[in-house]
Amino acid sequence: MPPPPPDWDTLTIVGTGLLGCSLGLALKHAGFQGQIVGLGRRQDTLDRAVARGALDRGVTRFQDAIPPSQCVVLAVPLGAFPRVFTQLTPHLGPDILITDVGSTKASVTSLASHALPHPRLFVGGHPMAGSEHSGPDAASATLFHDKPCVLTPTPDTDPDALAQVQALWRAVGMRVLKMTPQEHDRAVAAVSHLPHAAAVLLVQAAQALGGHDPHWGGWDVASTGFRDTTRLASSNPPMRADIMEANRPALLEALAALRSQLDAMEASLRGTADLCTDLHQAKATREAWLRRASK
Amino acid sequence: MPPPPPDWDTLTIVGTGLLGCSLGLALKHAGFQGQIVGLGRRQDTLDRAVARGALDRGVTRFQDAIPPSQCVVLAVPLGAFPRVFTQLTPHLGPDILITDVGSTKASVTSLASHALPHPRLFVGGHPMAGSEHSGPDAASATLFHDKPCVLTPTPDTDPDALAQVQALWRAVGMRVLKMTPQEHDRAVAAVSHLPHAAAVLLVQAAQALGGHDPHWGGWDVASTGFRDTTRLASSNPPMRADIMEANRPALLEALAALRSQLDAMEASLRGTADLCTDLHQAKATREAWLRRASK
Repeated sequence: MPPPPPDWDTLTIVGTGLLGCSLGLALKHAGFQGQIVGLGRRQDTLDRAVARGALDRGVTRFQDAIPPSQCVVLAVPLGAFPRVFTQLTPHLGPDILITDVGSTKASVTSLASHALPHPRLFVGGHPMAGSEHSGPDAASATLFHDKPCVLTPTPDTDPDALAQVQALWRAVGMRVLKMTPQEHDRAVAAVSHLPHAAAVLLVQAAQALGGHDPHWGGWDVASTGFRDTTRLASSNPPMRADIMEANRPALLEALAALRSQLDAMEASLRGTADLCTDLHQAKATREAWLRRASK
Repeated sequence: MPPPPPDWDTLTIVGTGLLGCSLGLALKHAGFQGQIVGLGRRQDTLDRAVARGALDRGVTRFQDAIPPSQCVVLAVPLGAFPRVFTQLTPHLGPDILITDVGSTKASVTSLASHALPHPRLFVGGHPMAGSEHSGPDAASATLFHDKPCVLTPTPDTDPDALAQVQALWRAVGMRVLKMTPQEHDRAVAAVSHLPHAAAVLLVQAAQALGGHDPHWGGWDVASTGFRDTTRLASSNPPMRADIMEANRPALLEALAALRSQLDAMEASLRGTADLCTDLHQAKATREAWLRRASK
């Protein structure tokens, strides 16, 4: 049974797409008693979110969204953060908590520390839930259930702000983990951004190895292995490009690690090293993770 | 409705694992009237295959398996082919067709041309069906339904032998494609062996980037993307090592193509190239394949 949500009178969600609207629905479902205000750019989207019960009120101007709130959740795409911080700042009082749902944390935390009048009230967050669908119509009260949410406080973060943001995500069923922004970015580069990059690289390699010809036999024999390994290459390109660029240093480090392993595999194939031992080791590593994650 | 199976009096299946026993079951299901003899190493496995109805008779010696047959299907692991060709040869008359189910074709075709007394009666084949389970208990009469089967005749292959082997696989529901052994090996390297290699490389890279520490945050935040992209890393290691080694030249070419794409992605990330355009292109390529394959 998740703990109850914070007892704020008003919460503002900036960005009313899949994550923002799912948070609204999930909080209502968890018994949140305050008002939920959504800030978006299009009134018709806001109206749909209100009709679905994800928001109590939808507004398009910062001055109408922020003043009565105790907490603002930034649920906009990574590329919109600079603009949103600039527009938000004039309306912030000294007691308003700010948190976000951005997929990378070092860049957002750095922006927050420069743009916000009270950076100690900012708690970086990454609720790791999603769907290939987007927008308020795809929102779900159960999207966050039993998924990890990484919070990335810095030494300056206010402990009470951290506790309240933790309570927010726990109330909607998430497992809260804490890391530094850099630890977060390196971890997601390794297990999320690198697998996405590899999926793209596999499609590009197939294209280069013959797939530019629509009659190529490879397209006839490609099967479930190719389908599953490349699934992430169907993700939203501008959103993914934003993430890759925002997490450039950690992703470059992860790509370099992939290249090192590629070099080693080639050497094994050309030489006499025991390829089978490497395959056993990779299988064991993956299956230890699967058992632990119960995926 | 698949065409009827060939009207052989006797068919011998060498190797009574998942593929061999599924072929037996599927042929019976398709109305095959002849006798199906299985050649295996362990009598208890053969007895289970007979009990399941996949074989009419199970034997452990080549001299008991081959003489009455019109066709021999080699359904053994790739690493066993040299031994099996040597043991098979003394028992072959001038009219016995030979085909196989090996995952690489240039190496098997080359072996056949050197080892067999009548190489024109050998038709290389790769029915592309499988399961993560193995052995006769996992066999299924529907394993081959609507899956591709690649046949790799050479200019020397007897046309009637090719027609009969084609009829065999069509009878169990497969879509038969023809390629040269080299075209086959390059196609499967690109869309099957390279995705497997990438899955292994991703697990190894995660391990190297922090995963050697069981408390690493990456293991906590890894989710369905990591799970699906690395699924093939859980495949059977000795079987996969055999395939990688048997298809070494084409796999090295595919690994080099992956490295070229990796270099290009790194350059885009470091520079000003339009990463988003590349992601759009990869998504479009993958989705064109998905539509065509109706996966």
